[in-house]
Amino acid sequence: MAYKYNSGTLQILPIGGVGEFGMNATLYRYNDTALIVDAGVMFPDTDQPGVNLIVPDYTVLNEIGVDRIIAGVVITHGHEDHIGGIPFLCRDLNRDMEIYGTRLTCGFIRKRLEEHRFDHKVDLHEVVAGDTLSFGEIKVHLLRVTHSIVDCVALVIESPAGTAFHTGDFKVDQTPVDGKNFDFAGFAEWGKKGIDVLLSDSTNIAKKGYTLSERTVGDSLKQIIEPSRQKVIVACFSSHIHRIQQIVRIAAELNRRVVLLGRSLENSMSVARQLGYLKVPAGVMANKEEIREIPEHRLIIITTGSQGEPMSALSRIVRGEAKQVEMYPGDTIIISAKTIPGNEKSVMRIINSLYRMEAEIHYEEISEVHVSGHASREELKLVFSLLTPRHFVPIHGDRMQLVHHAELAKEMGLTRRQIHVVESGDIVELAGDKVSKIDSIEINRRFIEGDRFEELEDIALRDRRRLSEDGLIVVTLMVDEKSAELVGEVEVITRGFLLLSDDEAEMVQIRDRVRRRFSELKRKDRLNWEAVRPKIRSALRSYFRKRMNSFPVILPIILTVPRTGGAKR
Amino acid sequence: MAYKYNSGTLQILPIGGVGEFGMNATLYRYNDTALIVDAGVMFPDTDQPGVNLIVPDYTVLNEIGVDRIIAGVVITHGHEDHIGGIPFLCRDLNRDMEIYGTRLTCGFIRKRLEEHRFDHKVDLHEVVAGDTLSFGEIKVHLLRVTHSIVDCVALVIESPAGTAFHTGDFKVDQTPVDGKNFDFAGFAEWGKKGIDVLLSDSTNIAKKGYTLSERTVGDSLKQIIEPSRQKVIVACFSSHIHRIQQIVRIAAELNRRVVLLGRSLENSMSVARQLGYLKVPAGVMANKEEIREIPEHRLIIITTGSQGEPMSALSRIVRGEAKQVEMYPGDTIIISAKTIPGNEKSVMRIINSLYRMEAEIHYEEISEVHVSGHASREELKLVFSLLTPRHFVPIHGDRMQLVHHAELAKEMGLTRRQIHVVESGDIVELAGDKVSKIDSIEINRRFIEGDRFEELEDIALRDRRRLSEDGLIVVTLMVDEKSAELVGEVEVITRGFLLLSDDEAEMVQIRDRVRRRFSELKRKDRLNWEAVRPKIRSALRSYFRKRMNSFPVILPIILTVPRTGGAKR
Repeated sequence: MAYKYNSGTLQILPIGGVGEFGMNATLYRYNDTALIVDAGVMFPDTDQPGVNLIVPDYTVLNEIGVDRIIAGVVITHGHEDHIGGIPFLCRDLNRDMEIYGTRLTCGFIRKRLEEHRFDHKVDLHEVVAGDTLSFGEIKVHLLRVTHSIVDCVALVIESPAGTAFHTGDFKVDQTPVDGKNFDFAGFAEWGKKGIDVLLSDSTNIAKKGYTLSERTVGDSLKQIIEPSRQKVIVACFSSHIHRIQQIVRIAAELNRRVVLLGRSLENSMSVARQLGYLKVPAGVMANKEEIREIPEHRLIIITTGSQGEPMSALSRIVRGEAKQVEMYPGDTIIISAKTIPGNEKSVMRIINSLYRMEAEIHYEEISEVHVSGHASREELKLVFSLLTPRHFVPIHGDRMQLVHHAELAKEMGLTRRQIHVVESGDIVELAGDKVSKIDSIEINRRFIEGDRFEELEDIALRDRRRLSEDGLIVVTLMVDEKSAELVGEVEVITRGFLLLSDDEAEMVQIRDRVRRRFSELKRKDRLNWEAVRPKIRSALRSYFRKRMNSFPVILPIILTVPRTGGAKR
Repeated sequence: MAYKYNSGTLQILPIGGVGEFGMNATLYRYNDTALIVDAGVMFPDTDQPGVNLIVPDYTVLNEIGVDRIIAGVVITHGHEDHIGGIPFLCRDLNRDMEIYGTRLTCGFIRKRLEEHRFDHKVDLHEVVAGDTLSFGEIKVHLLRVTHSIVDCVALVIESPAGTAFHTGDFKVDQTPVDGKNFDFAGFAEWGKKGIDVLLSDSTNIAKKGYTLSERTVGDSLKQIIEPSRQKVIVACFSSHIHRIQQIVRIAAELNRRVVLLGRSLENSMSVARQLGYLKVPAGVMANKEEIREIPEHRLIIITTGSQGEPMSALSRIVRGEAKQVEMYPGDTIIISAKTIPGNEKSVMRIINSLYRMEAEIHYEEISEVHVSGHASREELKLVFSLLTPRHFVPIHGDRMQLVHHAELAKEMGLTRRQIHVVESGDIVELAGDKVSKIDSIEINRRFIEGDRFEELEDIALRDRRRLSEDGLIVVTLMVDEKSAELVGEVEVITRGFLLLSDDEAEMVQIRDRVRRRFSELKRKDRLNWEAVRPKIRSALRSYFRKRMNSFPVILPIILTVPRTGGAKR
């Protein structure tokens, strides 16, 4: 492992989320004090079947000996790509952990932690924007920013070697729904004090201009909902408290009642209400059991499924499988979320179904029913202007976004030497007025199946992919223990494969091929599975390649038949 | 089957491509004369692993008895989603076929047909824009349109019951690369004669304004290529003759040589050159074997892989696996194509890799390196204005696009009764001045594996999906033929499954479970596979569900061991 640390420097080591989309996590280290900022998950691609989550393999921190000096984990906000990896971090580091976040962030983390059991203590500390946290010689100052979830902070990480500014996710919303403003003064003040290196959110670097205020969505939603004489269904992300707040407010104004469908929505709503982040007038909320009693034109259903997930509440409603809700032509459906890259087809599919049902449909491309939670180019520039950093490291983005953000930094007057495009695993060092990449370490990924701790091995994942592309042939041979001759039939079973088991002529050919290949083997090899299997496999592989240019997974099973077979009765 | 035909009407039956994206095909019928317009393929979604193509099941035409009266197949242009299904149509109808298309279209169809063998005659007839074809009482007039492939026509389908206008794919390019103009006069003339029903391309209904001329792409490509001092790689669709023509022209002007990489590109280039659709100055083209001899700054490589296909030439170059080409920082890569919905992630992946290699990258979102071949809203309106149709049926689009195109028709002054949003399988009838949907038939889809005639059964597809989601367990039992007792070991093999075969304790448990369940069976059932299999399967299913909430495919294999095993020597 190429890990090194030069004494007296501020080391910045992105663990995830830099050069990739999701699973944000960064290590900051000054001498014998280290911090982790955020610990998120990444969501899998469609070519990773069966994987639910991807997280960095945090055991790398043990390998490089940093685990012992981690003084705390500071979380910027409560989105899954910033908190979802915390349980895996806690397990991998296998020691007591101190975690810091604002009230709502801690609320969401608590929910996540409850789903797991740990051998060590995990302490959650609630902090507020404006706080300063001290970890040895590192101080962390929390500045409020606006985003698509409430209670978000950016971090100033101050060390004797210099000061880093870590934005986390943000936009510059001048009229936030909760009235809690972006901390312009704090940003400007730290700009004046001097920021050595800025690490800033690259998510929306491709978007020109400014991101609209969340409030504009409320206005459009009201305009859409007001004239409707039937029920209204709004699909949004469960963590989007601002959005939910606005829908609840509109419902109250229009004398409609709100029902939540979808467990993640119910969970995050209950956390947010308990912690006082949602203002819900009495009598607005209703249970799903009450739906049938509420007149259709008095109903707003908030639901999950904005990404077209087939098992979500929205998909079930559309398929007519939801117990409580039936769709009628003229119902209004609002998909109040962006489509996450990779989900385009499934979202399209649900929108097409809705058009087929003659619903009134609103989604981002045709109505103003969603605004992003991330800063567009002009906001990103504003942050440069406020902070006037000496160096820049783009974070939260894939390579393309990082490169484009680097180009923006150049527009803002930074030189090539002041801009550092790095990726997860690269070790960046701040020493004096110099920032440089000194080395890299390899950080593996863990593929998590389900939402517990179960991990899918790489090899299993590869198998699944091949199975799904080319299908499977299982060939079973029985070999007599004594004579080393084949006994009975050679069994051929196919799954997910063109050649169906009822093509008898083909089956005969395959069986013959296997028998022939087996008979060519030396007697002494025939009872050695490890010797037989590859021969059978390669004989069949070439057969399928030549016959049908196909590459199924071939699974030869060789069974030894004891000579005194069937003795037990 | 609900098929009916009312004598004396013009029947329009979309077979594919209406309410879905791709596999365009439409049946027109007047009394005992029927025509098919286009016969295309659809490309599969990522949740259809191993499927290469989807086509309509044309045997439906035999079932409804229309096969016997098909007088011809008329093709509007040579794109795969309009011609790729022709071999399947010929096979399904299983009779002599007469196919009509322009010269280039026929060139591409010929290539497709060569890959297959037919029991019946397939005649290809070359036609030119301006021609009129007669099929019994139906006349088809061919009008030239512009699109992203050369030699395209729209069709006027004239029958005693009325006249339909079928646009096929088109844009209104006022300055086409080949100088062959859109037939405005022909459109206007038919508008004056009277069009009873317009069927028009909905692909770009979401795009405002006008689609830019293909020529603008040539200008930008030249501006990008001219200053480059290294090699240039352009990825585009192999059928885009205009685009390739422009690149060849630029290469000649800038004294570069052009090499093609990718078989489909070589094929379509050779068809286009043979038929005189490409003007290639002497000495511009080079073989891939010559690449090493050409100075890097004198080289343009045209390649396939604009959709990020992992096995394409571009992907192989990026992965460093291409024999002839190595990438260097500063090389220019132009992705001169749109990203087809569903391919966003794979295109992103390749763009990120290119940024990582410090290439100069140009793609649609950041440079003017691609324009669409389909009409935007203003062009679609222009067609309405020229034709002033009495009725409208949007085609070539999924439900969402059809609905939006219907809204545009309303803007153009058509009433609700004049606009007919239908989908594949719906039977539309033109009689007098009335158009109506009279019924629907069900049209199945065929899932094709490879590009030959091999069809993947639905069940195989479902298996693959499950295999890819949950992995596989194969359990093998040997049963003594006489005693009906288990012989030897119970074999358990897992693939693509969490539980790896080396977890011995788990394996022992699974084996025990299988043995136990087997021993509970009545003796007479034990040699009856059909009886044993479901019992074993359900025993294991409940085991995996309870132990790990997992639902793998379970494949029990029961083998009968003959009592006189190993007799042959």
